[in-house]
Amino acid sequence: MTEQEMQRFSAQMQFLVEMDKMKNIYRQTLVLHEDRQENDAEHAWHLAMLAMILQEYANEPVDLQKVLATVLIHDVVEIDAGDTYAYDDAGNATKAEREQKAADRLFGMLPAEQGEAFRKLWDEFEAMSTPEARFAHALDRIQPLTLNYCKHGESWKKHQTKRSQVEGRMMPVYEGSEVLGDYAMEIIRRAAEEGLLR
Amino acid sequence: MTEQEMQRFSAQMQFLVEMDKMKNIYRQTLVLHEDRQENDAEHAWHLAMLAMILQEYANEPVDLQKVLATVLIHDVVEIDAGDTYAYDDAGNATKAEREQKAADRLFGMLPAEQGEAFRKLWDEFEAMSTPEARFAHALDRIQPLTLNYCKHGESWKKHQTKRSQVEGRMMPVYEGSEVLGDYAMEIIRRAAEEGLLR
Repeated sequence: MTEQEMQRFSAQMQFLVEMDKMKNIYRQTLVLHEDRQENDAEHAWHLAMLAMILQEYANEPVDLQKVLATVLIHDVVEIDAGDTYAYDDAGNATKAEREQKAADRLFGMLPAEQGEAFRKLWDEFEAMSTPEARFAHALDRIQPLTLNYCKHGESWKKHQTKRSQVEGRMMPVYEGSEVLGDYAMEIIRRAAEEGLLR
Repeated sequence: MTEQEMQRFSAQMQFLVEMDKMKNIYRQTLVLHEDRQENDAEHAWHLAMLAMILQEYANEPVDLQKVLATVLIHDVVEIDAGDTYAYDDAGNATKAEREQKAADRLFGMLPAEQGEAFRKLWDEFEAMSTPEARFAHALDRIQPLTLNYCKHGESWKKHQTKRSQVEGRMMPVYEGSEVLGDYAMEIIRRAAEEGLLR
């Protein structure tokens, strides 16, 4: 390896070690078989599994590799910006600015062309500007919905979440997948019927 | 949706909910920023990040989507078979049989063509029979090595791991990536020098 190649490899490994912090960023969603919150690394892995198995339901044809890359990196900015709860209005007001700074620093650790490729994927995800970004968004919404429902609405009850809030949160699912949008509405209907949502 | 389509979707969602158990299978590797073991979901996510960033170091050209699918599902069998520590000889004697049964049940939950595709990827991974499987193996070995080293050898000390054991464990890395093989040996050399390995 030349000196330059060594520097490239070293930057890549430093980024990958930094990524370990994703394992300590806790979301509001609970895991099903332990009494604790889910972290960002687990969430991203679970979304990647959803992507592989549910790709046939995307509204538009999607490049699976691009969907996988998107869901794997979509929350990386939370290493610096932290997780903002979906229904936390104050936190969401400053979220965009905090996350842009985080993206600059984190993706900036990588060799330029790799950092730029990830940044582009993340920008597209945030803007929902590609079929892959829209499908990734749909998965990102139905995964916690499914876990919340399977966990008997524990997280919803704690936050006194209203049915209308969850319905609003799930509307973008339709932009990525009609089938998954209908699935989300059906889960909400059942959750309301069972008294899991206000 | 027809009745048959509903059944297909329902089987897929049941598999994805079953996958949540990956978040409760703890490995011997420790995460860097908390005092706890890493779980299989976090590990698989981390490997996927390595795959995206280190693919240029594969000995042979690899299909990244296939590498990603492989690392994402490579430990799913542990939901039934449990994690077997790399240096646990007794556990490793029965590992193959336990994991085959687990693969039958878990991948069998999916629609046939999806279950068979995953089973094929997992069989190839176990047999190291494709460039993607060999590269995935290389990543699967250097990820815990890197975390163990960054965590000052805590897990090695607990298990009184010998340098020769880790060197043996890292030999297959060369089959997937010469560059990562050399990296592994350099980390072991440093770890030995710093007294982290017996």
